Amino acid sequence: MAKEKKQPRPKAETPKGFRDYFGADVTERKQMLDRIAEIYHRHGFDPLETSAVETVEALGKFLPDVDRPNAGVFAWQEAEVPGGGAGDWLALRYDLTAPLARVAAQFRNDLPSPYRRYAMGPVWRNEKPGPGRFRQFYQCDADTVGSASVAADAEICAMLSAALEHAGIQRGDYLIRINNRKVLNGILEAMGVPEGPVSDDVLRTIDKFDKVGRDGVRQLLTTGRKDDSGAEIAGVGLAPDQAEPVIAFLTSKGADNAETLANLRAAIGASATGAEGVDELAQIADMLQAMGVGPDQAIIDPSIVRGLGYYTGPVFEAELTFEILDEKGRKRQFGSVAGGGRYDGLVERFTGQKVPATGISIGVDRLLAALRAKGLMGGEAQGPVVVTVMDRDRMGEYQAMAAELRAAGIRAEVYLGNPKNFGNQLKYADKRGSPVAIIQGGDEADRGVVQVKDLILGAKIAAQASHEEWKAQPAQTEVPRGDLVAEVRRILG
Amino acid sequence: MAKEKKQPRPKAETPKGFRDYFGADVTERKQMLDRIAEIYHRHGFDPLETSAVETVEALGKFLPDVDRPNAGVFAWQEAEVPGGGAGDWLALRYDLTAPLARVAAQFRNDLPSPYRRYAMGPVWRNEKPGPGRFRQFYQCDADTVGSASVAADAEICAMLSAALEHAGIQRGDYLIRINNRKVLNGILEAMGVPEGPVSDDVLRTIDKFDKVGRDGVRQLLTTGRKDDSGAEIAGVGLAPDQAEPVIAFLTSKGADNAETLANLRAAIGASATGAEGVDELAQIADMLQAMGVGPDQAIIDPSIVRGLGYYTGPVFEAELTFEILDEKGRKRQFGSVAGGGRYDGLVERFTGQKVPATGISIGVDRLLAALRAKGLMGGEAQGPVVVTVMDRDRMGEYQAMAAELRAAGIRAEVYLGNPKNFGNQLKYADKRGSPVAIIQGGDEADRGVVQVKDLILGAKIAAQASHEEWKAQPAQTEVPRGDLVAEVRRILG
Repeated sequence: MAKEKKQPRPKAETPKGFRDYFGADVTERKQMLDRIAEIYHRHGFDPLETSAVETVEALGKFLPDVDRPNAGVFAWQEAEVPGGGAGDWLALRYDLTAPLARVAAQFRNDLPSPYRRYAMGPVWRNEKPGPGRFRQFYQCDADTVGSASVAADAEICAMLSAALEHAGIQRGDYLIRINNRKVLNGILEAMGVPEGPVSDDVLRTIDKFDKVGRDGVRQLLTTGRKDDSGAEIAGVGLAPDQAEPVIAFLTSKGADNAETLANLRAAIGASATGAEGVDELAQIADMLQAMGVGPDQAIIDPSIVRGLGYYTGPVFEAELTFEILDEKGRKRQFGSVAGGGRYDGLVERFTGQKVPATGISIGVDRLLAALRAKGLMGGEAQGPVVVTVMDRDRMGEYQAMAAELRAAGIRAEVYLGNPKNFGNQLKYADKRGSPVAIIQGGDEADRGVVQVKDLILGAKIAAQASHEEWKAQPAQTEVPRGDLVAEVRRILG
Repeated sequence: MAKEKKQPRPKAETPKGFRDYFGADVTERKQMLDRIAEIYHRHGFDPLETSAVETVEALGKFLPDVDRPNAGVFAWQEAEVPGGGAGDWLALRYDLTAPLARVAAQFRNDLPSPYRRYAMGPVWRNEKPGPGRFRQFYQCDADTVGSASVAADAEICAMLSAALEHAGIQRGDYLIRINNRKVLNGILEAMGVPEGPVSDDVLRTIDKFDKVGRDGVRQLLTTGRKDDSGAEIAGVGLAPDQAEPVIAFLTSKGADNAETLANLRAAIGASATGAEGVDELAQIADMLQAMGVGPDQAIIDPSIVRGLGYYTGPVFEAELTFEILDEKGRKRQFGSVAGGGRYDGLVERFTGQKVPATGISIGVDRLLAALRAKGLMGGEAQGPVVVTVMDRDRMGEYQAMAAELRAAGIRAEVYLGNPKNFGNQLKYADKRGSPVAIIQGGDEADRGVVQVKDLILGAKIAAQASHEEWKAQPAQTEVPRGDLVAEVRRILG
C-alpha cells in the first residue's frame, strides 16, 4: 500500500461570521423563547419547523439566469440527476417568512384557514461578517395567513405585548407603535402623486425620518440638503406646499389615539384609501382597548416608518423605552426589539391567488441582551456540586454520592480528571462555578463521615478574612455520610 | 425601463429528502428533548450549540485534492477573498461529534477539563433520500471530553438510563448493553492476529453477527458461506480452531455480569490488552451498581458489536425491549434507540495531543416514535377554544372574550376568516381540534348571555344520537356573559 501523505493539521476555527453558544447562552435563550412560545400557544398559534434548506426557486430571491445565485444566501447546486440534467440549486433559508410562504402554498388544502403559526430557529445570511454581525442568528416569528381582517393585526399587537411581558419586560419598559401604509398612500393620493418613481422616492425619503428629522425630510422632499459630511443630497423636487401633507402625516401623533386619528383624518384630505387606512387604525385602537391593552403598551404612531415601503397595511414596531449604559458608561435607549406588519403576495408567487397575511418578528439576540441588561437572566450561573476523588479505588462510592444528590434534585458530578493533584480538583470546581465540593478520604470513609465545603462562603472568606480566620475553615463542615444530602441542601438554601 | 420578463411560477415544494414539522410534531419532540436535557443538566453536563456551518477542513471528512468535496455532506465554496485567492469550502455539519472536536480544540484553554457537554439539534446528510430517510434530522448527544477514566463511561450509561426513563420509557422496557473493544483486541492478540488487513476482516465479519448469527460468523471467519440469494461470500480464511475464540467472545454472555466476566477472562487467554478490557467492564459493572443502576437497566453483553470497529474502549447500545405492531399488524421488537462508546483522536487531528472522550447519541426520531407507539405522546391534540363571529361590528367584544379566557390560562382564539358562513366557522373549529366554541349573536348580546358549545360532546351526539336528541342540543348551553370563563372551565374539566 502506498504510504499516506501526511496532511497538515486542520485549523480548529469556526468559519468567519459564525459562533458557538455555551452553557448559559443556550439555556437563557431557550428560557426566553419558551416563555414567548407559551403566549403564542395560548393565542391559538401552532408551531411550524421547516427545514434549514429550501430550493432557491422557492426562496424566490434570485433570478434563474444568475450563474451562481449566492449573493445574500448560502447556496449550492445539487449533483446532476442521472439522465435528468443539472441538479436543483438549494440554499439555507435567510428568514422564516419565505419558508412560511412555501408551506402555506404547498399545504393550502390541509392547513386550517386562517393559519396561525409561530416559528423559532436559526436563519443564515451570506453577508460580510463584522463585529457583532453574524451569518447565523435566531429569528422568532408569529404570522396569521389568510385573514384580511384588521382583527388579525390587533391580535398580533396584543400578543406581542403579552409575549414581551411574559419574557420579563415590564409594562412601561416597552411600547408598541402602530402605523398604516394605507394612510401614507392616501396622503400621496391627496398630493396627486401617483404610484411610480416619485412615490418611491417619497417612501425612500420618509425612511430617513428617524435619522434626519422633520426639517431634514422637508428639505429632502423639496430641494435637497447637505449631509453631515457636507455632501449635497439631491431632493425629490416637490414644491414646498406639496411636501407639507407628508410632514403632517409624520408628525400627526397627538396626546392620545383619538387626537392622532383626528390629525390623520385632516392630513388625508378626500382620499378614499387614506380614509380606509385611518379607519383600520381606529378599529385596531378599539380592539386593543377591548383586549385590555392600554396606550402605555400599544399606541397609534405615524412616525414609525421602518418597513413602510415593504408592508401594505398596518405596520408595528416594539421599542424598549428604558435606558441602559453602553460600554463607555453613556446612557442610551435600547431601541427596537420587534417589528412586523401586513403584507400581500406571500402565497401569490406560488399559486397566483392573493392571500392576505400579517405577522411579527422578534429580534431574539436584542431581546435577550435587553433581559440581561435588566438583570433578568443569569439563573444558570451556578455549577454542579463536585464530588472530589481522594482515592481512585473508591470511585463507586463517589458516584453513589453524586447519584444520591441527583435523586434529591441537586445538580452533581464526580471529578473525572486525573485525581492526583487535589488542588486541580478545587480549581476545576471553581471553573465550573460549583457551590459545594464534597471530600472524603480514606480516614473520613473509615469514620463514616464526609467533608462538605461551601465554595461560595469559602471564596468570600478567602477574599476578606485574616489568616487565622481562614485557617479555621468555617466554610468546611464534617457531617455523617448519611447527612450528606441534608447538609448540601442546607448550604444551597 | 425594460419590461420585466414574466417568470414561471415557482414550485411550492420542500427539496427532496427534507420535510416540515407541524404542531404536535414540534411540541412533542421538544417535550422529549427537554426531559432528556433535564437529566443531562443534573449530571453536570452543559449545553453547547455550534453553528450549522463548519469549514470542510474542520469537519475533516475529505481530502483537499477532491474537486468538489460534497459526497455525503452539503458543501459550497465561499466567494473569492479579494486579493486572497480562493474562498474556504464550507459545509453543513453531518453530526454533532465533529463540531465538538473542533470546539474542544479551539477552546481547550477556556473549557473546564474534563468537559461534559450535551448538544441537541439538526444535522444534514447529502444522501439519496428514500422512504422514511431524510437529509435533515435531529441528533441528541452527550459526551465527556478529557477523561480517560472508565468512571466517565459508567456515568454515561447511568445517565442514559435515567434519561430514557425520564423521557417516559419505563424500567424493563429498555436495556443498555455494554461491550469493550479492548476485549476483542485481546482475543485477536490471543489468536495471534496482529492489527492489519486480517484483523480488519475479522472486525467487519463480527459486525454481521446480528444478521448471520453464530454459525454464519463461524463460516465467514473460515471458509465462507452462501447468502440468502445463493451467492458465495468469501471467508476470512482462519482455521476452524482459530475462529473459536471470536465465537467464544461473541457468545460469552452469562446469567449475570459475574458469569459474563468469567467467560471473557477465559476467552482472552494471556492477553494483557484483553485483561485490561475485562477489568474495565468489571469496574463499570461495579460503578453502575454503586449508582443504583440494576442489571435490568444496563448489563455487560459482548454480543453488542455495532460500532466495535470505530470505538476504542467501552461500547454502549440501548435497545427498547417491548414489542410493537408494525403496519401489517405483526409483532416486532422496537430495537436500538441510542449508541455510543469511547473514542480517541477526537481533538488530536487539530492539536496533535491525544484527548480521550466518551459519549452517547440518542436517535431522536426513533425514541419519539417509540414514545408515540407506547401512547406516551399526544397531549397536544386539543386545539384552542374558538370564539365565533356572528356580528362583524362586535369584533372587539369577541376579542375581549378570548382575552378573558387566555387570562384564565385557557388557549383561545377568535375566528378570523370571513364570518359570513357560520358553518365554515364550525368546520374551522373542527379542523383545529377545538373543544369548545363560543357563540354570541346580537340577540344574545342584548340579553347579556353567550352560547357555549361543547364540541367534543357534540361530536359524540352527532355520531350516536337520534334526530330528537340531536335537536335538543344538550351540547350547547346558554350562560350569562359573566360566567363564560367558568362554563368553559367546567367543560374542559
